[in-house]
Amino acid sequence: MTNKRKIINDPVYGFLTIDDDILFDVISHPFFQRQRHIKQLGFTSLVYPGAVHTRLSHMLGALNLMTRALEVLKVKGVDISDEESLGVRLAILLHDVGHGPFSHTSEHTIVDVHHETLTRLFMQRLNVELSTQGHGIHPLDTAIEIFNDTYKKHFLHQLVSSQLDMDRLDYLSRDSFFSGVSEGIVGTERIINMLNVSNDELVVDEKGIYSVEKFIISRRLMYWQVYMHKTVIAADSLLCGLFRRVRELLAKGVPVDGPRFLIDFLSHSYNEASFVDNPELLDHFALIDDNDVMTAVKMWLHHPDIVLSSLASQLVYRHLPAISVSDHPFPSEQIEQMRLLTQRHFGISLSDTEYFVGTGVLKNHAYDFNDQEIKVLYKDGSCCDISEASDQLDRHFLEKQVTKYYFFFPKELK
Amino acid sequence: MTNKRKIINDPVYGFLTIDDDILFDVISHPFFQRQRHIKQLGFTSLVYPGAVHTRLSHMLGALNLMTRALEVLKVKGVDISDEESLGVRLAILLHDVGHGPFSHTSEHTIVDVHHETLTRLFMQRLNVELSTQGHGIHPLDTAIEIFNDTYKKHFLHQLVSSQLDMDRLDYLSRDSFFSGVSEGIVGTERIINMLNVSNDELVVDEKGIYSVEKFIISRRLMYWQVYMHKTVIAADSLLCGLFRRVRELLAKGVPVDGPRFLIDFLSHSYNEASFVDNPELLDHFALIDDNDVMTAVKMWLHHPDIVLSSLASQLVYRHLPAISVSDHPFPSEQIEQMRLLTQRHFGISLSDTEYFVGTGVLKNHAYDFNDQEIKVLYKDGSCCDISEASDQLDRHFLEKQVTKYYFFFPKELK
Amino acid sequence: MTNKRKIINDPVYGFLTIDDDILFDVISHPFFQRQRHIKQLGFTSLVYPGAVHTRLSHMLGALNLMTRALEVLKVKGVDISDEESLGVRLAILLHDVGHGPFSHTSEHTIVDVHHETLTRLFMQRLNVELSTQGHGIHPLDTAIEIFNDTYKKHFLHQLVSSQLDMDRLDYLSRDSFFSGVSEGIVGTERIINMLNVSNDELVVDEKGIYSVEKFIISRRLMYWQVYMHKTVIAADSLLCGLFRRVRELLAKGVPVDGPRFLIDFLSHSYNEASFVDNPELLDHFALIDDNDVMTAVKMWLHHPDIVLSSLASQLVYRHLPAISVSDHPFPSEQIEQMRLLTQRHFGISLSDTEYFVGTGVLKNHAYDFNDQEIKVLYKDGSCCDISEASDQLDRHFLEKQVTKYYFFFPKELK
Amino acid sequence: MTNKRKIINDPVYGFLTIDDDILFDVISHPFFQRQRHIKQLGFTSLVYPGAVHTRLSHMLGALNLMTRALEVLKVKGVDISDEESLGVRLAILLHDVGHGPFSHTSEHTIVDVHHETLTRLFMQRLNVELSTQGHGIHPLDTAIEIFNDTYKKHFLHQLVSSQLDMDRLDYLSRDSFFSGVSEGIVGTERIINMLNVSNDELVVDEKGIYSVEKFIISRRLMYWQVYMHKTVIAADSLLCGLFRRVRELLAKGVPVDGPRFLIDFLSHSYNEASFVDNPELLDHFALIDDNDVMTAVKMWLHHPDIVLSSLASQLVYRHLPAISVSDHPFPSEQIEQMRLLTQRHFGISLSDTEYFVGTGVLKNHAYDFNDQEIKVLYKDGSCCDISEASDQLDRHFLEKQVTKYYFFFPKELK
Repeated sequence: MTNKRKIINDPVYGFLTIDDDILFDVISHPFFQRQRHIKQLGFTSLVYPGAVHTRLSHMLGALNLMTRALEVLKVKGVDISDEESLGVRLAILLHDVGHGPFSHTSEHTIVDVHHETLTRLFMQRLNVELSTQGHGIHPLDTAIEIFNDTYKKHFLHQLVSSQLDMDRLDYLSRDSFFSGVSEGIVGTERIINMLNVSNDELVVDEKGIYSVEKFIISRRLMYWQVYMHKTVIAADSLLCGLFRRVRELLAKGVPVDGPRFLIDFLSHSYNEASFVDNPELLDHFALIDDNDVMTAVKMWLHHPDIVLSSLASQLVYRHLPAISVSDHPFPSEQIEQMRLLTQRHFGISLSDTEYFVGTGVLKNHAYDFNDQEIKVLYKDGSCCDISEASDQLDRHFLEKQVTKYYFFFPKELK
Repeated sequence: MTNKRKIINDPVYGFLTIDDDILFDVISHPFFQRQRHIKQLGFTSLVYPGAVHTRLSHMLGALNLMTRALEVLKVKGVDISDEESLGVRLAILLHDVGHGPFSHTSEHTIVDVHHETLTRLFMQRLNVELSTQGHGIHPLDTAIEIFNDTYKKHFLHQLVSSQLDMDRLDYLSRDSFFSGVSEGIVGTERIINMLNVSNDELVVDEKGIYSVEKFIISRRLMYWQVYMHKTVIAADSLLCGLFRRVRELLAKGVPVDGPRFLIDFLSHSYNEASFVDNPELLDHFALIDDNDVMTAVKMWLHHPDIVLSSLASQLVYRHLPAISVSDHPFPSEQIEQMRLLTQRHFGISLSDTEYFVGTGVLKNHAYDFNDQEIKVLYKDGSCCDISEASDQLDRHFLEKQVTKYYFFFPKELK
Repeated sequence: MTNKRKIINDPVYGFLTIDDDILFDVISHPFFQRQRHIKQLGFTSLVYPGAVHTRLSHMLGALNLMTRALEVLKVKGVDISDEESLGVRLAILLHDVGHGPFSHTSEHTIVDVHHETLTRLFMQRLNVELSTQGHGIHPLDTAIEIFNDTYKKHFLHQLVSSQLDMDRLDYLSRDSFFSGVSEGIVGTERIINMLNVSNDELVVDEKGIYSVEKFIISRRLMYWQVYMHKTVIAADSLLCGLFRRVRELLAKGVPVDGPRFLIDFLSHSYNEASFVDNPELLDHFALIDDNDVMTAVKMWLHHPDIVLSSLASQLVYRHLPAISVSDHPFPSEQIEQMRLLTQRHFGISLSDTEYFVGTGVLKNHAYDFNDQEIKVLYKDGSCCDISEASDQLDRHFLEKQVTKYYFFFPKELK
Repeated sequence: MTNKRKIINDPVYGFLTIDDDILFDVISHPFFQRQRHIKQLGFTSLVYPGAVHTRLSHMLGALNLMTRALEVLKVKGVDISDEESLGVRLAILLHDVGHGPFSHTSEHTIVDVHHETLTRLFMQRLNVELSTQGHGIHPLDTAIEIFNDTYKKHFLHQLVSSQLDMDRLDYLSRDSFFSGVSEGIVGTERIINMLNVSNDELVVDEKGIYSVEKFIISRRLMYWQVYMHKTVIAADSLLCGLFRRVRELLAKGVPVDGPRFLIDFLSHSYNEASFVDNPELLDHFALIDDNDVMTAVKMWLHHPDIVLSSLASQLVYRHLPAISVSDHPFPSEQIEQMRLLTQRHFGISLSDTEYFVGTGVLKNHAYDFNDQEIKVLYKDGSCCDISEASDQLDRHFLEKQVTKYYFFFPKELK
């Protein structure tokens, strides 16, 4: 540890403290800095105008929570070496470094590689690049093992990725804060104070049950009220359609203008192997962010293809598709009829109406029993699952999966 | 007024309420929506990562404060008709609609027209466009008169533009909030509750003196701590240099890639008359925002001109110029010597070093006696200037102008 | 309405505005001002040191929410006359005026009259007293009818008292705020914005479902985490024991020192009829507050009766009883054994051990189906109960009643 | 240090952590717990109803800030041993333990001993009492030396008592928070992060200049807007009058009812020597708090002495004296005339009118040059006073002393 101590103002927690050289160097790296230009919540700011916070601020926030969680665990006597402490902090700092523009939307469109895989690729590159900068050989080894859950202490991975990890704690707090949806506020500090480790599992002290219940409920509410808001779904569908159309046009040899690397990715179907074979691809990917997407969409406003220019116009001028949400699937006749109407209205082929009319499914359950459980630690040393420990949230409630169906179509045909 | 009532979550005030059809229609217009893509504080988020809030959120916030100010003034018996009330709300809603990307930076580089002039051009266009949408003929007439200070009631203009207007009240609160600099927090609600009108002048009730003092101090602190932060100055200088270089290259006939309308503006020297002569120019300007600038700078990374590509690299990879600030002008020998060093280091001509080495001046006084005064209203009906009314802030303090000089140069030559 | 406009700073909402003379006069009356000396949460501050806020601040806060709720309902076209508006604001302002010291504890000990009955007695007295002060004859008539639910518009009563009234909205926000338990924070402003009236019933617009769910969950969590905290239960039991012992001693003719009116009430068993027969009794009751109780307990530290002085010492020196909580009733043998141990330890009679050893029951369900329902209003005008409208909270969850049993005994015998 | 870790919710900072056994034992001691019943701001809650927070919460808050300040200083390489760390935390925890009811009012009336002297007496007693409880011999020795500024490291004392100590930082934040006066909010966390030590002096890093300026301005504004609010001055004058009258009556042999120890103190003129001679006196003093005072005043409502009962009535029924504030002393004729009017109105002797009519002086300067300076540390290691370092606050501003004169008299004679 050095005597350097950088303090960054953060509206959510007041201050973030960066107190180790390698953390500095990772944060300063272009691979990390690019996250300044990727919004944490993509199109959510169309509904909640304050929610323009970046993925960079989330990654710094998650680091901050990790630092505090480690303090708490150490005071409680959990054995964590300095190397492990730094490793788990690097792991959380970098956990989202693989995200591309409009995060989840781009995952299946710009490049069909999961963002966690990209995170691994970025971490490996950084592990090599930072080796030459006075941090010893492969300074991210422990961080990578923790991220991959191959490190001997499993609970360190759980701090980075589990149902109660520092990632979720930060994003729930941060997304509530910036969206102005106070319903999602989580007692982050209290939960962290209640963390403990038992049998190499991250657990919550008995006194923290209420806070964990609140956390589960808040997550569910944020899911429906913010993350899956109808307007966000509509804008996401639109952007997916735009990318699909550009791919289709490029495949046919129709030229489409746009930032060089974005167009390159839309001209190819890169997969994980492509990145391994061609290391430069990662650098190109790193140069694509939200700015390129929004600039490109404006460029497409004047494209001769009427489907592309119409979709672009809808997004640029916020003339989003209408969207209906239902507890039941929409009948296929209703969809077919809408496609016919759309065909007539826009003067396009029936097959092209799929860019304007479509359906989808949203699923959420409060708590995933298949995922890792949240365990409660009692004073007598015994543990049980939160669903058994809680008076409020029984298995019945937690297991209940909510499924919703949506149907989008041109606003003017509403 | 309609029964429609749109509620928008806002992290600063909780909720914003839009309760009139024409306000809706103005907000929905592309001219207004483009402000979603213009950050209120430009490069400030390089220092304060939370400060990525948009000019759109500021304009909505200022509208919210105006609505509350009007309520307060009406309760105090100030005569304000429904038409005036709507007019002044439209005026504040649109007061910043003329800003281009990176607001103040672009004002002298992308186009040499003051943003207030552009605001007027946008308002006039909206006045015509909205006429045909069921809001009567020229529904912005009153708003435009208030904005131009040609309306008979001067205090309405002061609510939009004066030393204590709704613009400043919102931006100080909002900028403090998102940057996480609590020092700038202003008792907005209290100041608004203390507003009054005397002899057609906006005044502050005697009980509000402390709050106004606090407001003046906060503004000064925000100026130095946030708005004029060294890193922000450095990034602004860099962007200005980039635009100047692109103009120079384009003038020489060297092709420079980039979003069409941005390049068009950098290829010409449009002035106010250009917008009058060619109405389409305003639509083109409206299609340029922060996204285009950031995307373009990334495109310039690979430009053959070494000056352009170096500047682009500095901005994209956040390798900003070093910057020194002093109470005295920097000696010309120091500057000359640095230019020589820079010439050698980059292998460029001496004249091109002006893109990497330069100086500037920052000025601020807490309160501008040449600008409109802030007047305090006593219970006996008499008024005086805040500098006389305040125990804390005497003329000596308020008049004091702080001037600082800065000097920027390549970081590697530090 | 007058032009007077009093603004009171409030840490929860920023500002409270009092804008009518009769509201002023009610607030200034000693019957209202006495609530400055009655803590909203009694002994809760033993656990949450910030939670020393007074019932007066709650009553002002509830008035503030009512004022905002009325604005919202009027904008939505609900017919509410100025007289009704003032009536319902007076009703909420006075809804808790009948509380005595340590509110719920004193209700069964100092005087065996429900606090709502006392509220009615105070309102009737104020109705007479204010008649002579320029507010017309019986200015509280409408307020009293609304409070008693005898007014023709039922929804006005529901704003004062129902499962979603301004009382609960304020106390949940306020208690969370001052206790520092962020888990209890409720989106008050959003809920109020979603209120509506349908068929003379207070309802919530469809868009407010999530906020109501969050409100129900928060209430439940606050119940267990704050209101029914073990330490609070222990201190309440202790105070009840103290009052019972004083009554017992006074009944036996043993003199007990203390503030005159407090001792008077503990010497008698006044009921509702006593207040009707002897109007002065209400004035005497109005002179007893938390200060008297805490001062009296300190006086009892030196009383010759060992039971009384021991109980007083436990409370004054915060040497509270130990308390166990269980999902099942405690076996009677366990209780008997503890009473024997206590008898020996303190050298007191077996019957007197009931002051040191005892049991009790705590019950809560999130939502009371027997109480008035929370109804959701759909866009098509139809209504249904929140338990049907919510995806999250089904009847199963809402009906679930949690019952806990507690057992308290001397700490030293733990 | 133990593994015990007590977490207390605090609305200002979120959580307070107590992590050492002796801190626990000090906090649990009746001498400390009595501060639950002493409001931090006395009668200020008459104006700001939220400001009922206790001195106990302030003392815990100041401990919290101290813990954070020590962390910062240690990271910056300041040499602080574990013993010193604990000592300075005990010193700040106990710095206000000597306050009596209504703090500053009681200092000159209930007992004429400065509260710092009483703090020393309490610390010495605790030093002895805690010796026998497993904390070693005289565990408060270091704390007492630091408090008395006899410890070798002067900066530790400055953390407890100086122009920028943890006491002031906490009370400004806390008082702003609970009063709802956002103007007083101070960037506590930033200031603490900027603390440093140079030549055994507590200093502020150069980057903290703006925050210190803001702190000085906030303090000044809080002084006039909150601490010296007219209503607070009026109530304080009234309580002083009440105590003086009770003393006068008791001296004449007229019996006055009230809590035993309060009456004892009002019957005698105890000084520091009395506490030394009679150790029990400290225990008696420790049993007097705000509750006793408010209960006693209610008892005096019915006292036969008309002066006493009138004063009591004014305070209980909040019928406070009128108060005028002026920049100049009030002319003696005005005062004399008011005393004559008062004599006639109440039918009392002219000399007794001094209880109803009187004057006083209020003084404040933002920064006391006679007191310890706030020093700024530059990167080159040099130091200078904030008045030289600041662009905003020059000596002229800082030295300016504001003096105000007040005149109180019966409200009915206004």
